[in-house]
Amino acid sequence: MAKNLEFADLLIVYGGMLTDKQKDVLELYYNEDLSLGEIAENLDISRQGVRDSIKRGEETLLQLEQQLGLMKKQKAFDELMQDLLTQAQALKKDISTRSYPLLVQQKAETLVKQIESSMNILD
Amino acid sequence: MAKNLEFADLLIVYGGMLTDKQKDVLELYYNEDLSLGEIAENLDISRQGVRDSIKRGEETLLQLEQQLGLMKKQKAFDELMQDLLTQAQALKKDISTRSYPLLVQQKAETLVKQIESSMNILD
Repeated sequence: MAKNLEFADLLIVYGGMLTDKQKDVLELYYNEDLSLGEIAENLDISRQGVRDSIKRGEETLLQLEQQLGLMKKQKAFDELMQDLLTQAQALKKDISTRSYPLLVQQKAETLVKQIESSMNILD
Repeated sequence: MAKNLEFADLLIVYGGMLTDKQKDVLELYYNEDLSLGEIAENLDISRQGVRDSIKRGEETLLQLEQQLGLMKKQKAFDELMQDLLTQAQALKKDISTRSYPLLVQQKAETLVKQIESSMNILD
């Protein structure tokens, strides 16, 4: 069974939508990095039961992401904010060091346009 | 049956998670503003069937929002972007009109801080 670490992120976003058992099993598997055998022992269920819970839980997580795309939106948001921060910091530096005014003006214009064109990234 | 327009927004976000029937009924009810009787006639189901679909669909939408909070996050994002846009536009104007440098610098600093403090609003 290959461990896909994207599930750890999906688990944070959609964990509340799983059954308690699926959530417990997946957290031990992805966040605590326990083996199937260790999880079985910890939760006092069979190794096959652990395997089934992981499989069904993963299927649910993938289906939810396909239907709602919350993780994809989260990533788009993170990238946008990092980008805006870099631009705003550069602008602030240019202002404080009294850079060439037209250049500063262009950067401010770029920042405004970037914000305007990103208003709908979560839609 | 009181019509709560928040459901129209929830329907956009979580519509894909409803049954086809619930989705059809809720869209006619909230987006097309049809009456229960009109929906019943349109979809060839009973008036009580329409009422049940609306009730169950609304319950599912509320439960999804409680578990995932996607609409709440969407609203927080919209407000943030509107706020950043207003600030960036003011900054751009100040730069182009060569406003008092320390004031411009302060505004750039405020914008940077606002972006920094908003990096996690979707978590």
